[in-house]
Amino acid sequence: MKERKYLENADALMKRISKGAFLTVQAEGKVNTMTIGWATIGFVWQKEVFMVAVRDSRYTFQLLEKADDFTVTIPADKSFDKAVMFCGTKSGRDYDKFVECGLHEKEAQRVASPIIDIPGIHYECKIIYKTAMDNAFLEPSFEKLYPEKDYHTLYFAEIVACYETP
Amino acid sequence: MKERKYLENADALMKRISKGAFLTVQAEGKVNTMTIGWATIGFVWQKEVFMVAVRDSRYTFQLLEKADDFTVTIPADKSFDKAVMFCGTKSGRDYDKFVECGLHEKEAQRVASPIIDIPGIHYECKIIYKTAMDNAFLEPSFEKLYPEKDYHTLYFAEIVACYETP
Repeated sequence: MKERKYLENADALMKRISKGAFLTVQAEGKVNTMTIGWATIGFVWQKEVFMVAVRDSRYTFQLLEKADDFTVTIPADKSFDKAVMFCGTKSGRDYDKFVECGLHEKEAQRVASPIIDIPGIHYECKIIYKTAMDNAFLEPSFEKLYPEKDYHTLYFAEIVACYETP
Repeated sequence: MKERKYLENADALMKRISKGAFLTVQAEGKVNTMTIGWATIGFVWQKEVFMVAVRDSRYTFQLLEKADDFTVTIPADKSFDKAVMFCGTKSGRDYDKFVECGLHEKEAQRVASPIIDIPGIHYECKIIYKTAMDNAFLEPSFEKLYPEKDYHTLYFAEIVACYETP
């Protein structure tokens, strides 16, 4: 039985995720972070897995399509709510979100994408599978989530590190 | 912010899932249960979501393709390990697993598929999205998981009830 060492924080993630976390990705020398409120976590393909969903209209989507990994930073408290709001409503095409929000990158332990250097829980994730949503399978209530038809791509990633910073 | 009431048991699920849980589905008057060791849980599409992966070679896959829902029962302790083993290695095409394992169905609260009537945690799940795995996106280490090319279909379901039975 493979040890599950990175899933211990599942309850904390569940409590926090819909209030917003930072999804950070680096590709071709560019770094961007966006706010996510959706995620799943678990054990699939003999690996500890983090799944995020990103619309194909997003700048982060462009980076993720060229990246091997991403990080997720869950702020420890509400003091970053303003940054969470900014990074969830503005595009990295128009702003350097790190400058605008006074956020700093910090080198990750095991992936190329950096983490956000704030107190919280950090997941380092290596992309292992992805699937673009097919609207053929959507239940009717999904329609209101996609008025622009900019469906999500689901990125499944192996959690290769998870830790808390004070 | 939508209340998350069914995700409280995420840590318990993570601790238990790779030791085996029962995935139970009813379709067209037939009921089958199989053992799963893989799952993810979280919050997506404004819903609390449980994801399971089922190979298209499975009898359960045939039923799931005609079903609207499924249940997941996580045994409270090791006393059902023998049933977990049987239901993970034998097919519902060849055996009535309930008879063979002395398991009993119990009517679910909010879905058509029954739960397994044993002490444990039960998730009642309504299927909202599914996607058949596309081998174009697989990382190389996945190949050994699919020597028969019987890829998984990923079923995403809204958790409509979750409770513990003594």
